[in-house]
Amino acid sequence: MKNTNGNCLIGQSGGPTVAINATLCGVLNRAMETNAYDTIYGMVNGIEGLLQDKIINLSEIFGSQAEREKLQTTPAMYLGSCRFKLPSPEECPDTYAKIFDIFKEHNITSFFYIGGNDSMDTVLKLSNYAKEHGHSVQVMGIPKTIDNDLPITDHTPGYGSAAKYVATSLLEIAHDTYIYNMPSVTIVEIMGRNAGWLTAAAALARNEYNSSPDLIYLPEVKLCRETFIKDVKELQKKRENIIIAVSEGVKGVDGDYLSASGDAVDSFGHKALSGAATVLEDWIKADIGCKTRSVILNVLQRSAAYICSATDIKESLMIGSAAVDAVKDGITGKMVCYKRISNDPYKVEIITADVDGIANAEKMIPKEWITDDQSDVTQNFIDYARPLIEGEMKIPFKNGLPQYCDIKHLQ
Amino acid sequence: MKNTNGNCLIGQSGGPTVAINATLCGVLNRAMETNAYDTIYGMVNGIEGLLQDKIINLSEIFGSQAEREKLQTTPAMYLGSCRFKLPSPEECPDTYAKIFDIFKEHNITSFFYIGGNDSMDTVLKLSNYAKEHGHSVQVMGIPKTIDNDLPITDHTPGYGSAAKYVATSLLEIAHDTYIYNMPSVTIVEIMGRNAGWLTAAAALARNEYNSSPDLIYLPEVKLCRETFIKDVKELQKKRENIIIAVSEGVKGVDGDYLSASGDAVDSFGHKALSGAATVLEDWIKADIGCKTRSVILNVLQRSAAYICSATDIKESLMIGSAAVDAVKDGITGKMVCYKRISNDPYKVEIITADVDGIANAEKMIPKEWITDDQSDVTQNFIDYARPLIEGEMKIPFKNGLPQYCDIKHLQ
Repeated sequence: MKNTNGNCLIGQSGGPTVAINATLCGVLNRAMETNAYDTIYGMVNGIEGLLQDKIINLSEIFGSQAEREKLQTTPAMYLGSCRFKLPSPEECPDTYAKIFDIFKEHNITSFFYIGGNDSMDTVLKLSNYAKEHGHSVQVMGIPKTIDNDLPITDHTPGYGSAAKYVATSLLEIAHDTYIYNMPSVTIVEIMGRNAGWLTAAAALARNEYNSSPDLIYLPEVKLCRETFIKDVKELQKKRENIIIAVSEGVKGVDGDYLSASGDAVDSFGHKALSGAATVLEDWIKADIGCKTRSVILNVLQRSAAYICSATDIKESLMIGSAAVDAVKDGITGKMVCYKRISNDPYKVEIITADVDGIANAEKMIPKEWITDDQSDVTQNFIDYARPLIEGEMKIPFKNGLPQYCDIKHLQ
Repeated sequence: MKNTNGNCLIGQSGGPTVAINATLCGVLNRAMETNAYDTIYGMVNGIEGLLQDKIINLSEIFGSQAEREKLQTTPAMYLGSCRFKLPSPEECPDTYAKIFDIFKEHNITSFFYIGGNDSMDTVLKLSNYAKEHGHSVQVMGIPKTIDNDLPITDHTPGYGSAAKYVATSLLEIAHDTYIYNMPSVTIVEIMGRNAGWLTAAAALARNEYNSSPDLIYLPEVKLCRETFIKDVKELQKKRENIIIAVSEGVKGVDGDYLSASGDAVDSFGHKALSGAATVLEDWIKADIGCKTRSVILNVLQRSAAYICSATDIKESLMIGSAAVDAVKDGITGKMVCYKRISNDPYKVEIITADVDGIANAEKMIPKEWITDDQSDVTQNFIDYARPLIEGEMKIPFKNGLPQYCDIKHLQ
């Protein structure tokens, strides 16, 4: 059979989110309903898998709407991920030649890459290479990250669901903590290396009866041990149980990660982190001496799909769909972004932006959204984040467990 | 106003579960619909709070059905808990005199205590004291514990929801883990000091595409470092990502807790535990050297109400209701229990049993439900546990968060 429209290829990279498969589903839905491509392929394990020719036929696997509906609330990454930093064409011309050979072999006319900062660097490099070498392949970036740290886009797909998980967990930890009538400090460690968006979401747990978390420490501020102990002691004069939200990436007054121990780095060269909560726990044990507990939210904050935000899932479907339309309009080397029109009523539009200003950049929480005492966020943050956690999805269950898509191809 | 029926008092003790408030709700519902008491009181912070006269009027607070419906899916313990071991009447006659004075002062004719092994010891002591001293107060124990370690009752309220959380989390951790195409070992640490029921529930995560957890280590077996490393290495020949479920209470070949460090004990004299996963992680790093991650499920396994089991919540309502009926029938010094009639179709009845055989006892997983290689559970366990995690509740949400009962009285 001769291809008429050409084919497209979709990849996912970086860390998982609950919404990244909804974005994949959005691309599939729109590509199928507009007959944009003859075949929709997926690369397994990102660019690294592509170089090993690990390609699957998504048109076949997700031909039925029922299967696509299951996909939209399946956590982590249906296509798998990689931790592969694409070198520059100057460093490794053969890698680029191979990638574009594979594109040609499968008649790929559009390539969608769903990921975070590092993935947008790949989009930038491939689209530049295509332009410079006269390849007609269009390359489109689609954001995702629970960290919410991509510039230009108002927020990122996956953030709202992770924020809902964090806020809900903080509320449940409050219920769990308040049952004992004895002084205690509970420290909840939340993901976020340099940007505190997800840790800040802990503030959304406050309601008419719950004022915790009592303190919120973001990676955007430097944490002084003496101030920290003073803050905790002040709070203990008012109540028995103190709950603290802390980012895994919180830094000390010297600007180093509190948790930094040794020189371990991941394959992107980022310092491997663990144990900010443990450091605070040790400080409290040494300087105050009351009952202390650390709760590390760990990978469930990015994979607990049953508590996803309906706003996040629906927008993720929309942004995947918009990426297909943008490519159809001839756009390449860009990323689809959310643009917020208003907070109340909450309204967003989807635009495209040069990936050049996004790749390898990080968006921090604005200084004016952090309180003067550096241990909380302001109402501006609440107004920004609240709409993103609104709404619940109906998740299919079977035998008492959520029903997700089969991921045997990743094993 | 003169009391005609007398009043009742309800308390909660021990660790939280997602279903203990459903049991409280069951008592309230039945007591209200049968007009069993003039006023239903709640003691705040268990027996310890009672001795400080911390009593609230539940008839007033939960007069509306809407409020009771919110209560049935509110996590942790609406009435708070305590870590107070009631001494014997010989040791502290004054404590008993004071408790029964408070009962008399509030015209308490029935006392319901919802808790685990230690709470049933309180039920036993108070009911014996009442009989010996001619007090007509009836004392009824109602089980709860995520540990599922109470004798006689087929299972305990709270276990099914915690088991559903554990199984769902293991499934989501599998989705999260399989995205990377590199050797890794993920260790998930689950609560359970001496009985492995909750850790065993990890086995329920297996489905048509997911065979993990690959290994399950219960506190009922002794774990040998050499065998453990051999098991992991064997598995690594077959697949990249290994997932291990381990109980916080897993023991080494010497019979000591793997995680035991120092002599710290809680107020019941139980050894304080933490870090079984960390020990296994250290073994793997030293003897194998691949990427390892520990996920400690921590307090969320007992407080994540939005993933509760509908079977558990409905049975918890039933058992609370049955406790009221039992007291009406003149029963005292007993605990209401589940008796399983059949697995398929799943059917339970509620009976009463002497609290004498339950207090301070622990029910372990039967040896024949553990595989010969000591690193998994058999189909018998699956058949037993699967029905307990079935069904989902509709949890009310507001502003993106679950709507639970106000717990200002605990702060």
